Amino acid sequence: MALRETVEAEGVVQATTPGVAVVRVGLVGAGNVGGALFELLEREGDAVAARTGLRFQVVRVAVSDVSRARPVDIPASILTTDALAIACAEDVDVVVELMGGLEPARSVVIQALRNHKPVVTANKELISSEAAALYAEAARSGVDLLFEASVGGAIPLVRPLRESLAGERVTRVMGIVNGTTNYILTRMSEDGVSYADAVKEAQSLGFAERDPTADVAGHDAAAKAAILATLAFGAEISQSDVWREGIANLRQEDVAHAARLGYEVKLLAIAERGTGPSESSPEALDGNVSVRVHPAMVPRSHPLAAVRRAHNAVFIEGDSVGELMLYGRGAGGAPTAAAVLGDLIDASHNLLSGTCSRLAVGPRISPQPAGELWSAFYVSIDVMDRPGVLATVAGVFGEHDVSIRSMEQMGLGEEARLVFLTHSAKEANMAETLESLAALDSVKRVGALLRVLGEVGDGA
Amino acid sequence: MALRETVEAEGVVQATTPGVAVVRVGLVGAGNVGGALFELLEREGDAVAARTGLRFQVVRVAVSDVSRARPVDIPASILTTDALAIACAEDVDVVVELMGGLEPARSVVIQALRNHKPVVTANKELISSEAAALYAEAARSGVDLLFEASVGGAIPLVRPLRESLAGERVTRVMGIVNGTTNYILTRMSEDGVSYADAVKEAQSLGFAERDPTADVAGHDAAAKAAILATLAFGAEISQSDVWREGIANLRQEDVAHAARLGYEVKLLAIAERGTGPSESSPEALDGNVSVRVHPAMVPRSHPLAAVRRAHNAVFIEGDSVGELMLYGRGAGGAPTAAAVLGDLIDASHNLLSGTCSRLAVGPRISPQPAGELWSAFYVSIDVMDRPGVLATVAGVFGEHDVSIRSMEQMGLGEEARLVFLTHSAKEANMAETLESLAALDSVKRVGALLRVLGEVGDGA
Repeated sequence: MALRETVEAEGVVQATTPGVAVVRVGLVGAGNVGGALFELLEREGDAVAARTGLRFQVVRVAVSDVSRARPVDIPASILTTDALAIACAEDVDVVVELMGGLEPARSVVIQALRNHKPVVTANKELISSEAAALYAEAARSGVDLLFEASVGGAIPLVRPLRESLAGERVTRVMGIVNGTTNYILTRMSEDGVSYADAVKEAQSLGFAERDPTADVAGHDAAAKAAILATLAFGAEISQSDVWREGIANLRQEDVAHAARLGYEVKLLAIAERGTGPSESSPEALDGNVSVRVHPAMVPRSHPLAAVRRAHNAVFIEGDSVGELMLYGRGAGGAPTAAAVLGDLIDASHNLLSGTCSRLAVGPRISPQPAGELWSAFYVSIDVMDRPGVLATVAGVFGEHDVSIRSMEQMGLGEEARLVFLTHSAKEANMAETLESLAALDSVKRVGALLRVLGEVGDGA
Repeated sequence: MALRETVEAEGVVQATTPGVAVVRVGLVGAGNVGGALFELLEREGDAVAARTGLRFQVVRVAVSDVSRARPVDIPASILTTDALAIACAEDVDVVVELMGGLEPARSVVIQALRNHKPVVTANKELISSEAAALYAEAARSGVDLLFEASVGGAIPLVRPLRESLAGERVTRVMGIVNGTTNYILTRMSEDGVSYADAVKEAQSLGFAERDPTADVAGHDAAAKAAILATLAFGAEISQSDVWREGIANLRQEDVAHAARLGYEVKLLAIAERGTGPSESSPEALDGNVSVRVHPAMVPRSHPLAAVRRAHNAVFIEGDSVGELMLYGRGAGGAPTAAAVLGDLIDASHNLLSGTCSRLAVGPRISPQPAGELWSAFYVSIDVMDRPGVLATVAGVFGEHDVSIRSMEQMGLGEEARLVFLTHSAKEANMAETLESLAALDSVKRVGALLRVLGEVGDGA
């Protein structure tokens, strides 16, 4: 390891300050976040060295196409297309993986860890798919695998869950972790914009992809839910086990109606302990946690209701801490690069002192079946406006043991829209209700289904 | 160090799990927080051991009176009145200082560090008075001095500022860090309760002391402002250099008037970079940061406005991260004990691996004089209701270069209350204005002075 050598010894003409260690960074991926990181290290290098005693030198950068023009000026001499070579390079002390996706990112990360190089990554797909295997690899090599930037952008989430709350029995983590959908929902709620127009707007602002599915169907949020659940409960929960509903079914009328009732509609990622036996081992949690993504009605008194536009926030509840909320920018090059830099500093300090962060992850567990959950629901249904429809529809709720708290009819003429609020009911019963409703002649469309979140304690 | 011995070797009849290290804790202070920590370790000991590989054993507890009855059942055999002996005891691995105040806490902490025992403390007076000297002592001994619980109770603040944001140029930290005053202000704003009644209520609920001065005059918030400023800027800022105004001058009418204008009145602790040269060294910050505590009008669109009752929150702004907010319970036995436990786990892991947390604190710097600051103001003045008063009063503003944005008259009869909102003006000019106003015959009382906070960006 050449960490303590001066930069001159590497053949670079730049004096180093005594007491400042040079850390040679191999950067894999130079897109939005990678470019912002490169720029940040250029611009703030002196300040970072003064504050932390570390001078970061990006010595190799892997990109898919060396000749492509990029907004950040990276010297051609350090560009390469061979990502795997960076994981093996003798002149790289720490690997920063910002290419995203499963392969070849996975191979690069594993190879780097095997070569005893700490890895900093923002790769939510990778971390949410095989957390335990990757942590084990890092533990075997005794180096860090840090991933603060994989969820919540600049918001410190991974570190607080991993360290500050290491002794805490976390009961629920509930977050707005996808800025695109939160932007869409805010525009629908505050400005009366239709779902389709809000999506277009998010696309034109660069928040949403041309194909917005990953965001609006909740895939992105589900990956982050898996990461948060794994950290909160200390047992591996995979993205593929996260139950998921998106926001594409929502209409502006639903969001407006929720607002009139005192609620904001938010797409929530939720990881929650079940009501089963409360044992301390991660194994005991198998089948006894719920990890899910769905739109919900959040009462305006809840701190999450005030999280607007592209912001993210995660609300954490624990036996001793009560309620915490961590709020900030969940995406974007600069904020995400800031989170990567925080990890880079940590990993480098640990490398210099020969230690690494602790992260114990138990065996993979499965969340409880979603059908077992209870909650109050909001359901909107488009029906033919003819006599007896309401009685028929209400009867279907009753047949499935779903008790109606209130009903409202909107619209006039041939068609009408019925909006139901239910008392707390079982998810499976609600699903059966919707299925039976959809089969009725008089029902034209089953629209939005929202879970209604309870009020939060006043914590006074 | 006996960390890896089993508990049996210490003569205690309890089997240990393989791979679990026993950490012997010396607890100094068994009041509200100390008692909660003792209870938490008893109740959650197994779970903490399963999650972290550490079993905490409280082996000595220093209290002021051994014979006093306490809500938590601590074996008489481990109670002592000799706090300093705990800092020297061979059978103590880590010292937790929860007695508060400067002495003898200071001597205990220094002695423990000199004996290479990591120290976890919640002592805001101590940390805000001589941060640099204490950090230097810890660095010399190569052990941790951790103080997450000294500000913001259960909210992870110290760790994110110290670690996650180590590479960030923080421009402003702005917090609601005193739950008592926030409870009082919330009651005044939401429920029309008078200041005096809200204080009495806070006292009866156990939030406020019999003498509420430390809270309402802003002393508590000032200590926390000093700690936050020191962490944010990497240079020592002492509590005694924090400029401070409390809330005792506020009337319910002021809070209600602010609410009508779309603002919530909050007591804010603010640490902010000045507009001077933006250099990276801590020395360059001397005279170029502002650290202060005062009530302010926070626009309802700002996340801090939604922080109600006894909750705390700290809003952090930085060049790369944009805006972050960390929110939670700022006080209380259980939440504060949870923060102490997080530190205890960290300090113990570091002790086992022979490392310690990094904390570089530059030399002590002085904040810029408060008079140099600019802001918009809200001023309320009780005057005799006779012809010409308004012109006279308005003239005084003009004489001191304070430009009035709006004026409203409230009340009828002999007396009237004038409420002014100004354009941005210099603090020194505003102070002179108030002095001149107070000297006028027609002015009966200069009431509340509030700084008006600007809107926050939408971060979209």
